[in-house]
Amino acid sequence: MDVKRLQQLLESVQSGDTSVEDALESLKRLPYEDLGYATLDSHRSLRTGFPEVIFCASKTAAQIAGIVERMRTYSDTILATRVTPEAFEAMRLCAPEAVYHEAARIALIARQTPVPKDPSRYILVVSAGTSDIAVAEEAAVTAEAMGSRVERLYDVGVAGIHRLLGRTALLQNANALVVVAGMEGALASVVGGLVSRPVVAVPTSVGYGASFQGLAALLTMLNSCASGVAVVNIDNGFGAGFFAHLVNER
Amino acid sequence: MDVKRLQQLLESVQSGDTSVEDALESLKRLPYEDLGYATLDSHRSLRTGFPEVIFCASKTAAQIAGIVERMRTYSDTILATRVTPEAFEAMRLCAPEAVYHEAARIALIARQTPVPKDPSRYILVVSAGTSDIAVAEEAAVTAEAMGSRVERLYDVGVAGIHRLLGRTALLQNANALVVVAGMEGALASVVGGLVSRPVVAVPTSVGYGASFQGLAALLTMLNSCASGVAVVNIDNGFGAGFFAHLVNER
Amino acid sequence: MDVKRLQQLLESVQSGDTSVEDALESLKRLPYEDLGYATLDSHRSLRTGFPEVIFCASKTAAQIAGIVERMRTYSDTILATRVTPEAFEAMRLCAPEAVYHEAARIALIARQTPVPKDPSRYILVVSAGTSDIAVAEEAAVTAEAMGSRVERLYDVGVAGIHRLLGRTALLQNANALVVVAGMEGALASVVGGLVSRPVVAVPTSVGYGASFQGLAALLTMLNSCASGVAVVNIDNGFGAGFFAHLVNER
Amino acid sequence: MDVKRLQQLLESVQSGDTSVEDALESLKRLPYEDLGYATLDSHRSLRTGFPEVIFCASKTAAQIAGIVERMRTYSDTILATRVTPEAFEAMRLCAPEAVYHEAARIALIARQTPVPKDPSRYILVVSAGTSDIAVAEEAAVTAEAMGSRVERLYDVGVAGIHRLLGRTALLQNANALVVVAGMEGALASVVGGLVSRPVVAVPTSVGYGASFQGLAALLTMLNSCASGVAVVNIDNGFGAGFFAHLVNER
Amino acid sequence: MDVKRLQQLLESVQSGDTSVEDALESLKRLPYEDLGYATLDSHRSLRTGFPEVIFCASKTAAQIAGIVERMRTYSDTILATRVTPEAFEAMRLCAPEAVYHEAARIALIARQTPVPKDPSRYILVVSAGTSDIAVAEEAAVTAEAMGSRVERLYDVGVAGIHRLLGRTALLQNANALVVVAGMEGALASVVGGLVSRPVVAVPTSVGYGASFQGLAALLTMLNSCASGVAVVNIDNGFGAGFFAHLVNER
Amino acid sequence: MDVKRLQQLLESVQSGDTSVEDALESLKRLPYEDLGYATLDSHRSLRTGFPEVIFCASKTAAQIAGIVERMRTYSDTILATRVTPEAFEAMRLCAPEAVYHEAARIALIARQTPVPKDPSRYILVVSAGTSDIAVAEEAAVTAEAMGSRVERLYDVGVAGIHRLLGRTALLQNANALVVVAGMEGALASVVGGLVSRPVVAVPTSVGYGASFQGLAALLTMLNSCASGVAVVNIDNGFGAGFFAHLVNER
Amino acid sequence: MDVKRLQQLLESVQSGDTSVEDALESLKRLPYEDLGYATLDSHRSLRTGFPEVIFCASKTAAQIAGIVERMRTYSDTILATRVTPEAFEAMRLCAPEAVYHEAARIALIARQTPVPKDPSRYILVVSAGTSDIAVAEEAAVTAEAMGSRVERLYDVGVAGIHRLLGRTALLQNANALVVVAGMEGALASVVGGLVSRPVVAVPTSVGYGASFQGLAALLTMLNSCASGVAVVNIDNGFGAGFFAHLVNER
Amino acid sequence: MDVKRLQQLLESVQSGDTSVEDALESLKRLPYEDLGYATLDSHRSLRTGFPEVIFCASKTAAQIAGIVERMRTYSDTILATRVTPEAFEAMRLCAPEAVYHEAARIALIARQTPVPKDPSRYILVVSAGTSDIAVAEEAAVTAEAMGSRVERLYDVGVAGIHRLLGRTALLQNANALVVVAGMEGALASVVGGLVSRPVVAVPTSVGYGASFQGLAALLTMLNSCASGVAVVNIDNGFGAGFFAHLVNER
Repeated sequence: MDVKRLQQLLESVQSGDTSVEDALESLKRLPYEDLGYATLDSHRSLRTGFPEVIFCASKTAAQIAGIVERMRTYSDTILATRVTPEAFEAMRLCAPEAVYHEAARIALIARQTPVPKDPSRYILVVSAGTSDIAVAEEAAVTAEAMGSRVERLYDVGVAGIHRLLGRTALLQNANALVVVAGMEGALASVVGGLVSRPVVAVPTSVGYGASFQGLAALLTMLNSCASGVAVVNIDNGFGAGFFAHLVNER
Repeated sequence: MDVKRLQQLLESVQSGDTSVEDALESLKRLPYEDLGYATLDSHRSLRTGFPEVIFCASKTAAQIAGIVERMRTYSDTILATRVTPEAFEAMRLCAPEAVYHEAARIALIARQTPVPKDPSRYILVVSAGTSDIAVAEEAAVTAEAMGSRVERLYDVGVAGIHRLLGRTALLQNANALVVVAGMEGALASVVGGLVSRPVVAVPTSVGYGASFQGLAALLTMLNSCASGVAVVNIDNGFGAGFFAHLVNER
Repeated sequence: MDVKRLQQLLESVQSGDTSVEDALESLKRLPYEDLGYATLDSHRSLRTGFPEVIFCASKTAAQIAGIVERMRTYSDTILATRVTPEAFEAMRLCAPEAVYHEAARIALIARQTPVPKDPSRYILVVSAGTSDIAVAEEAAVTAEAMGSRVERLYDVGVAGIHRLLGRTALLQNANALVVVAGMEGALASVVGGLVSRPVVAVPTSVGYGASFQGLAALLTMLNSCASGVAVVNIDNGFGAGFFAHLVNER
Repeated sequence: MDVKRLQQLLESVQSGDTSVEDALESLKRLPYEDLGYATLDSHRSLRTGFPEVIFCASKTAAQIAGIVERMRTYSDTILATRVTPEAFEAMRLCAPEAVYHEAARIALIARQTPVPKDPSRYILVVSAGTSDIAVAEEAAVTAEAMGSRVERLYDVGVAGIHRLLGRTALLQNANALVVVAGMEGALASVVGGLVSRPVVAVPTSVGYGASFQGLAALLTMLNSCASGVAVVNIDNGFGAGFFAHLVNER
Repeated sequence: MDVKRLQQLLESVQSGDTSVEDALESLKRLPYEDLGYATLDSHRSLRTGFPEVIFCASKTAAQIAGIVERMRTYSDTILATRVTPEAFEAMRLCAPEAVYHEAARIALIARQTPVPKDPSRYILVVSAGTSDIAVAEEAAVTAEAMGSRVERLYDVGVAGIHRLLGRTALLQNANALVVVAGMEGALASVVGGLVSRPVVAVPTSVGYGASFQGLAALLTMLNSCASGVAVVNIDNGFGAGFFAHLVNER
Repeated sequence: MDVKRLQQLLESVQSGDTSVEDALESLKRLPYEDLGYATLDSHRSLRTGFPEVIFCASKTAAQIAGIVERMRTYSDTILATRVTPEAFEAMRLCAPEAVYHEAARIALIARQTPVPKDPSRYILVVSAGTSDIAVAEEAAVTAEAMGSRVERLYDVGVAGIHRLLGRTALLQNANALVVVAGMEGALASVVGGLVSRPVVAVPTSVGYGASFQGLAALLTMLNSCASGVAVVNIDNGFGAGFFAHLVNER
Repeated sequence: MDVKRLQQLLESVQSGDTSVEDALESLKRLPYEDLGYATLDSHRSLRTGFPEVIFCASKTAAQIAGIVERMRTYSDTILATRVTPEAFEAMRLCAPEAVYHEAARIALIARQTPVPKDPSRYILVVSAGTSDIAVAEEAAVTAEAMGSRVERLYDVGVAGIHRLLGRTALLQNANALVVVAGMEGALASVVGGLVSRPVVAVPTSVGYGASFQGLAALLTMLNSCASGVAVVNIDNGFGAGFFAHLVNER
Repeated sequence: MDVKRLQQLLESVQSGDTSVEDALESLKRLPYEDLGYATLDSHRSLRTGFPEVIFCASKTAAQIAGIVERMRTYSDTILATRVTPEAFEAMRLCAPEAVYHEAARIALIARQTPVPKDPSRYILVVSAGTSDIAVAEEAAVTAEAMGSRVERLYDVGVAGIHRLLGRTALLQNANALVVVAGMEGALASVVGGLVSRPVVAVPTSVGYGASFQGLAALLTMLNSCASGVAVVNIDNGFGAGFFAHLVNER
């Protein structure tokens, strides 16, 4: 589009309809963001399956509905995170095709269900405890919404290491892994030592006392003695799922 | 070897030399680690180019030389990080083929130079300031040692954003990115917003006062408002290069 | 008034009604605060447009109304921050001219609307995300109440840097800037690198996990690699607006 | 210059020497950084007295000398901070006109001494203790190098408040103030309450125990109950002097 | 069971029904977890009195009831911690034999009351203040449920050291001690200096201000100048009781 | 009682009813606490005006009433802190003479109003802001309940230093001072510099953002550059009043 | 002196040599600090035994000697803290009467040895371990230099509580106490529970690991469950001795 | 000795030489510490193998030698920790039988080598990395010096979990375990999940960046999801070995 405007301007100069001075002024006025926008946002518009994302925490149900209504006019896929049941009700009024993934607190508004291009490549989402599942599901649903195949392996914390060791094949065949753990967060290191593919570690705020709302797990993961582990923010299941999809897609 | 022992045992049962009961006992006694070792380490022995790694900080030159000597008997490639010039001198005595990457503080002992399988895929290592280059080089040399093609874009911190914006193509064509920044670490977010491939962010301890030895940059990167950014430990150039190679290799 | 008392005393000495000794004693007893008060508060009473300020957080609606009632007898302009709708209702009962800036959570009680002395000089208030707007508005409305012209540029966070780069002129022509950002707070550094006027950075508590209620953004801003950036407390929009007005006014 | 290139291109299209397609390609290839560079760096090249700055901490004397040598070819004024006597010796070999401000640890390489445009406007640099003077001088010399008149008021910490109160006129006539304090850093609040111009507060790492290398003073200043106070990083005298000059210059 | 499968496989090899190659493949496929499970979980199934444990914080009453219902089919003893009265009501519907220890917030579902093997060996649970009793009781009831004899000594904080010194025999005859204290947590050091048996220290979140939700007590206990003190997480009465039972049981 | 037991034992030895050996054994068994109790608690029972203290935070109204009922049987003065209006209602049912100091959140149950022994000696309680008054009153009422004369000087924060300087005599004639301040807590240093008597500093949790619930004020006060300042816990008005009374009483 | 100037001015008005207007102007110009200085510093000049204090850390031997030389002309007593042996040598050259208290790292320059006014009142300095003695001696020597009688009780940490309990009389007869402790700092609470006079607690940086350079002991002391305890900065023996003397002197 | 004094007093009462009243007075005056000392220290003098302990960090070689010389007159076993080679040389001059455990930095001065009472009970000391061995050896040598049998299992960090899993029997047959780990410290949780005996976890300061000198490992261990894990201070090998011996000895 920007290119079109540039082309029109140049043609207008060529034809003599516009003087060089006016074109120069026009180019100066030409907003940067337009050039920028076309370039920078191309990763969104040009790639199928990259959703628009709404982070719903600290927004009212009405605000969220308003944003959805506007986005829906130009975007095929909208992914809303941290969605309460109330917010979802408001959302569905303006977007009846919206689907609510309750465990993940995600609402997905998509014209069509994304289908993995290469089903042999999958992301494995691993969680340490049952309380970490909300964050794990946020990661899993995000990656699925972007078009990745996702497998799940939940409640396999290191206090019972055999639960993990019995699934070596599932672990080692994954193309990318998301490891979600609260409390001491040791699972990321153990998984990192078992596989040779990238592990995205997500500390959760699950725990009490000296877990300091996820700080303990965060530090554990950052100091992982296993190579191949990188970390996202506490409870940031969305970020982990998004990152893992980028790794997985090619 | 373990497989050989298993095979011998089974053949012995088959031939009647060993009773089922004795074989059962024998299998129970069979050390886990042997089975485990073969499986778990296979990602190293079976994949070309995965080096053995020695973290040399807080080891004496003599200790490092000793480890190198032993490793050299069974490993094609050894990557030693945080190597001082003194340590390298000791290392070279027992491994004359060792090459020292001074800026990266890495010594590489390899039978042959790794060649990227697919030269069209490259990792871009970006650094904010000149003081971050040691960490950036640790990432770059690590990824190269593992077989990735690496491009470098240094000293493009956000205080002069034009330095970065002029290299959009270099940024957007990278298959994986490593962003190295100290002080406020804002570069990771800006790069993350410009590209659609995974960004591995490395906070560095460069700075003073409220940088708290890299904590400020670490928190910045963990809270990145750009999707597609994951973080490794402060000054962990090796970890970032290793991770980026895993992303890049397929 | 103090000056008057001093004058009376001196005249009394001159006329012989008071001995030197008694005057000396009297001067010693003369309370410091009177001299001090006149001097120190003159910046308020002597400068038009400097409002009295009430920080309403943790005060009851009744308390706030009481303070307003008293202040209104001697002050032309009262600026109340962190005002809830309930507190505003109570305030309006005793000050019907009060105006509520809901987004800014500010109530303004002023005899007349302040008019910028030099409309060519303006403060630009920039915010990273929509959730930062409450703090940004607190800054903007404060500066306007003090007599500055204010322009706004909202939702231009660094994850989409083109949004910012398209407004270079608006940025570079500002006489002072307030940059409001939560999460990783990188916007202050980027803006600081684009302009050559003072940037007042306001970290906000927007974010979760390792944002630690604004600590991450605060550290980012304090470590800004761009010169010309100074920082106020987390969520302190009022302080930033006040400071920016001081910069702007001459 | 960029405008010239644009103009040439447009004229070439107008004259028919360049086709629209080629011009389009040419515009796409037109490096961003050039446009960006010209714009963004103009605040340096177009304004007299804005020095190039070298942060010398963690650079070797040889590196610093090298940078100075290169910069000297295109810049009238170079300001080097955190300069050790050894580094200065190396610097002077390639820039004999270099002047060393020992207390400020600053080296200044300038063709001519900057002269304040309006000598009636001055910055007041205030320090709490004698140990804070190194940082205070860094602020003072920086602002002077940029062309501001600077006054100094040192060793007036709040434990002896009379030292400060006796200088009210000096404080209240300043156009901008820099307050430098370690330990508990209370001086910034007190000064902020005495003046009606912007106060840039610089916490220092002077202190011991629970000063936590300047953290205590930093928090004090960020929480200042006086309006009109903004804060820079611990020990960042340069940043404060730079900021104060921006405030002072118009 | 695993052993059975192994035996069957070996017999099949012996009989010639399975070739050595196939058996070898079969052994490789034999899931780790089976071998692992039998071994690793034996400490639960083989030792009488080791309860299954449910950490009920952040689980709904319905979820807890569901878990209890399932566990009850294969476990003789279930210990549920952080149980609210509401959760207990739900629990009792499916497990009528459940007993609620209100002060300890523990529900115990056991076929029979555990009886200490050696009643002469006891654990002493000591608490500093009345507010620490909830955590102390969690420790005491846990250890009792596992089969230890437990004595209690509550409200003997160091501000009135005589309360402690009068119970020297009770302290010195204990086989293991649990010391529960909030605020400054000094009790652990004092008790550690009085006895020659292991002391498990439990910091509690009791306190305000600079207790930082138990951090102060935690640091105190970690730095205990008395030998023989080890520490568990803030408020982790369960962990302390569990650990003390392990020490006590032989 | 203990003394009685000792006396009986000695008389029994004297009379020959008990052998020296048996008495020796008996003395060894004699519980420490009895001797200890008499000695250690004497500071309470022997000094008039030392109240029993109940810290009511995190106790139910019923619990508090129960404790009051028991204490009332043996104590002339009971001081209850952090008392809610509901708790006071319950308290008054069993102690009709109870008096509620609402601003201080203190309930006082005393047979007679304490009268200062030496009314010329007074404690001055100083507060920085109106929000600090609850803590300041807790200090003032505590010291009064113990028998000190208390003067108050509220809302004299350092942002308007003249408010403080005008009360020099009141400050300098105090025998002990309590300084209560939140936000940046600078008032303690300024007061400490003005007087030559002990200053007990109380940081409060008043503030937001980087005040970190009183941590900023706490650090400020601990680092006070003025000699003669000591600090108690955040919001610990009781502790400050108690300490100041100890200083004042002789 | 100021009073003299005031008197001269008044007499000049009385005699008619100065008009009221001129006197008024003159009074306005009369520097605050002069009035302030006389008042505020009187606590030093008017009270016998209050020494001038030099904090020598981070000053060179030459600087310290210079300060001593100047101070010696107007002050009877100079107390220098954190004095190295080298600094003392330099000091003695210009002040031969200087006495070095090596353990306390204090140099005392006094015309005459201070004699306690009331020898029955003493300060007791208590230390937990031998490593805390340097700080304890700083407190003791400071208080002695100011004119207090000081008793010492060292190496009585809570791990061997009997060492403390055997000195009850020494503890309970002290008029003020200083308790110096590192590691977990529990001694302050125990001593606070044994006495009914003010306890000044000094955390020290003695310890390792989670002592965090004295932070653990600092928090312990701030959270002391014993009333009558106030705290100074980590390692601030001087401040504690100074404060205790103020308590002790009347 | 105390007992003797008591006996003399009683005999004196028996014989009529002392009245009951005088004896009563005498008993009241009888210093606490004497009774206390005998009781409290008995755990040292009465139990064979409990060594005297000297913490040598921050003591000079001369001081250490002095303490050793004195202790040697009354103690059979002296254990000195954190001993440098220089300190050991000084120590050996006065105690020729001293033995230096270099890796553990421990010097042991014992009349005879302690022999485990029950060699079937052993402590297993497990370390994650080679850099943790100094701390691990401090634990091992301490426990051996006290009379425990100790087994070692070093360099079995979780990044290569198979190294650990192959030693299940060694792990599960231990009577007590010490787990030493730096970086992320995850090993304690994994070991805790594999065994049913007490695990004493020792975080080490091994690591860099976000390990924060052992804080990360400390938090990990405190939040261990495995039951049966308690924690000692960072790098406190001595404390862990001491504690483990207490667990092991009966």
